[in-house]
Amino acid sequence: MPQKVNLAEKFGAFTEHWAPRIVARYEGHEVRIAKLDGAFDWHSHTHDELFLCVDGELDIEFRDRTETLNQGDLLLIAAGEEHRPVARKGEVQVLLLDPAGAPNTGDETTATVAVEA
Amino acid sequence: MPQKVNLAEKFGAFTEHWAPRIVARYEGHEVRIAKLDGAFDWHSHTHDELFLCVDGELDIEFRDRTETLNQGDLLLIAAGEEHRPVARKGEVQVLLLDPAGAPNTGDETTATVAVEA
Repeated sequence: MPQKVNLAEKFGAFTEHWAPRIVARYEGHEVRIAKLDGAFDWHSHTHDELFLCVDGELDIEFRDRTETLNQGDLLLIAAGEEHRPVARKGEVQVLLLDPAGAPNTGDETTATVAVEA
Repeated sequence: MPQKVNLAEKFGAFTEHWAPRIVARYEGHEVRIAKLDGAFDWHSHTHDELFLCVDGELDIEFRDRTETLNQGDLLLIAAGEEHRPVARKGEVQVLLLDPAGAPNTGDETTATVAVEA
């Protein structure tokens, strides 16, 4: 039986950065939340990735531009597109959509698989 | 080239109820926003559907229970599960995830296909 999930409550239950938590599963995909701070690695995925900024300010750097996300901003990162998330102004809370089991980066040395919230 | 989308701006651009707008496309699925007021039809889908309550209070009635969603509450409605969204306390803003092209209800007489925001 599906149960509702409160995002603020789930965000309050962990403190680690760059360590996504699964809050729902949808059609073979995972809805994840994560806390970000500082710069992540440059990477790309073989799948689309969706970012929704829930709190804070997040730069998503691409090789040719930067998109700055604030609360309520949604950004689709297309499969194959190199990007680097950077939280320059303190902690950022994001909601993400990725295929089930997909790591958060293509780099084997830094990849983290999402765990249950 | 993907561009960020601001949800508040997109919500501000239409007034119709039960008429979903597509704000992003992800892996064969559509991220939609909708404004809801009053009761919708009982229906089910052949796919999972995800609700995120962005503003207001929304009851999702199931045959055996009701889940009440407030801002920041996320609910996965599993494929085949009969449900009826009811906004009893005024307008509600939701973000939805559905397969591309899927109508918002299984009832042919009331089905609405999402259009671009």
